[in-house]
Amino acid sequence: MITIAVDAMGGDNAPRPEVEGAIAAARELGVRILLVGLSPELKKELAKHSHRGLPIEIVPASEVITMDDSPSQAFRKKKDSSAHVAAKLVRGGQADAFISAGNTGAVMAVARFGLGLLPSVERPALAAPFPTSVGGTAVLLDVGANVDSKPAHLVQFAVMGEIYYRAIFGTRRPKVALLSIGEEESKGNELTREAFARLKLSPLNFTGNVEGRDIFNGSVDVIVCDGFIGNIALKISEGVAAHIAGMLKQALQSTLSSQVGYVLSRKAFKSFRKKIDYSEYGGAPLLGVKGVAIIGHGSSNALAIRNAVRVATELVRGGVNEKIEQEISALPVPVEA
Amino acid sequence: MITIAVDAMGGDNAPRPEVEGAIAAARELGVRILLVGLSPELKKELAKHSHRGLPIEIVPASEVITMDDSPSQAFRKKKDSSAHVAAKLVRGGQADAFISAGNTGAVMAVARFGLGLLPSVERPALAAPFPTSVGGTAVLLDVGANVDSKPAHLVQFAVMGEIYYRAIFGTRRPKVALLSIGEEESKGNELTREAFARLKLSPLNFTGNVEGRDIFNGSVDVIVCDGFIGNIALKISEGVAAHIAGMLKQALQSTLSSQVGYVLSRKAFKSFRKKIDYSEYGGAPLLGVKGVAIIGHGSSNALAIRNAVRVATELVRGGVNEKIEQEISALPVPVEA
Repeated sequence: MITIAVDAMGGDNAPRPEVEGAIAAARELGVRILLVGLSPELKKELAKHSHRGLPIEIVPASEVITMDDSPSQAFRKKKDSSAHVAAKLVRGGQADAFISAGNTGAVMAVARFGLGLLPSVERPALAAPFPTSVGGTAVLLDVGANVDSKPAHLVQFAVMGEIYYRAIFGTRRPKVALLSIGEEESKGNELTREAFARLKLSPLNFTGNVEGRDIFNGSVDVIVCDGFIGNIALKISEGVAAHIAGMLKQALQSTLSSQVGYVLSRKAFKSFRKKIDYSEYGGAPLLGVKGVAIIGHGSSNALAIRNAVRVATELVRGGVNEKIEQEISALPVPVEA
Repeated sequence: MITIAVDAMGGDNAPRPEVEGAIAAARELGVRILLVGLSPELKKELAKHSHRGLPIEIVPASEVITMDDSPSQAFRKKKDSSAHVAAKLVRGGQADAFISAGNTGAVMAVARFGLGLLPSVERPALAAPFPTSVGGTAVLLDVGANVDSKPAHLVQFAVMGEIYYRAIFGTRRPKVALLSIGEEESKGNELTREAFARLKLSPLNFTGNVEGRDIFNGSVDVIVCDGFIGNIALKISEGVAAHIAGMLKQALQSTLSSQVGYVLSRKAFKSFRKKIDYSEYGGAPLLGVKGVAIIGHGSSNALAIRNAVRVATELVRGGVNEKIEQEISALPVPVEA
């Protein structure tokens, strides 16, 4: 039975959604759950729900990383945090994967250095799913695991993103693109031009450059960029959505008759913001580490936690790490200029 | 009298909005207009409007750059294009500034190489105004004039953006920030960390890093980044806005009662998209060139053209280039490591 360690203390509302989501996952997905965190709290929370006969166990951790902790400090000093213990369970083989809705920077550090990288992977990448206008999903990576990436790193991100996409969304030959500032091969910066040349030589279904506005139009499946760019792209998307919501709210509340319109559009907005919030996709995997690590949004609800467990399970079942190792090793070695 | 050359053939609907906007500008702003383009078309278009006694003249140009032209090809081969001729009028002193709603890449090349850079400026920057949630404006630069900027370039962009902001929005000490992936000085990539250190030493009102979501919240006035990042930020904003509009339209058209809501929200959306479309701000100046060059959106209407003339006039009146030259020359010279 696949075993998933759930950092039960990570999210903004922990441990409530973590425990609820874990119970739903154990019931519906046929997986074993290790709930990691402060034992008394977890026992109390578990007692509120019926979970008889379900494969759920508590694994104690004495510390909690908060959203205000500095990621590097938390990683170095809170060695018995629920995130650290969850990662140790994966490293020690007691769990196949761990999920956390905690402090993204700290959880990335715990996953990267606690689990270590796959032998052929030079840098990990955080892969964020986005909804597209045509009802599908596009995955943007890296959204912040690294900065100052080299062309070879972007090629590795492309391979990892493509394998993840196949495993989760079932597309046989996902379309892979580079995020740039024009479609032509000559457009972009030093990094993307060199990465373009290498991606052309790769066995991937590489379709060339896409621009920022194309992330959402469904024309491609996997979009690759440096983590500095990807993180800004993600945050700007959230910012624009919040900004539009605020402006519309104002506009729609201005007259009595428009209140009806407001209620309707508020619903449409909520659904959009739910979609853009990657916890609805079960969180973003940190690809390239030994074992599977899924990082959810801090505001993850029980459904998001359950979905994160589902994604983790599918990545384990799909043998994603074996494929990453195999396909990166098989990449053509570029001739250095 | 300040003289503005208007590339009358540049925009998607040229020369109609260009001619209408130029007439409005000559009437309302007390400036002289040189309408540059194919004489027969411009005479025909002018004849449709009353413009008696207004200081408007046609300056012939035999070629037109289209939106499909490659910017570098158009710049090198169409030497008698309306954009080239408009820039030549500035270079030759017959005009103080030129505006164009044409092919952005081609117009940037014409402005940069046709006008040349100010002596102390190493690279120009395209400065795009954005609406903020609190009803103000933030300026993001560079949004695509350069890629692979060095820290010293970002500092120059900050100085130029701040001077432009003061001239157009009247703020005495605009807040200047770096676009990065975390607020702390240590967050970011090699480029932003070094630029941060230099901006702290500058006389600017530098407030530190902002993240992507903060562009719209009104916390800062001038936001500096490399042109690769800025271009992607701009395009993603447009993409998210279009995406949300599409999803809301769908949601609001689903029931009869929601049609009222749709009509109302469509109006709110139109106003938002007008705001985010920088032609409503009169276009984006290419800062750092000798003379003033304003680049409007291809879809610019007559009001946008008129506003571009207004912005050009204010930049000329404000002596922006003299200030840029003076303040960049006075920057502290960093000690190289």
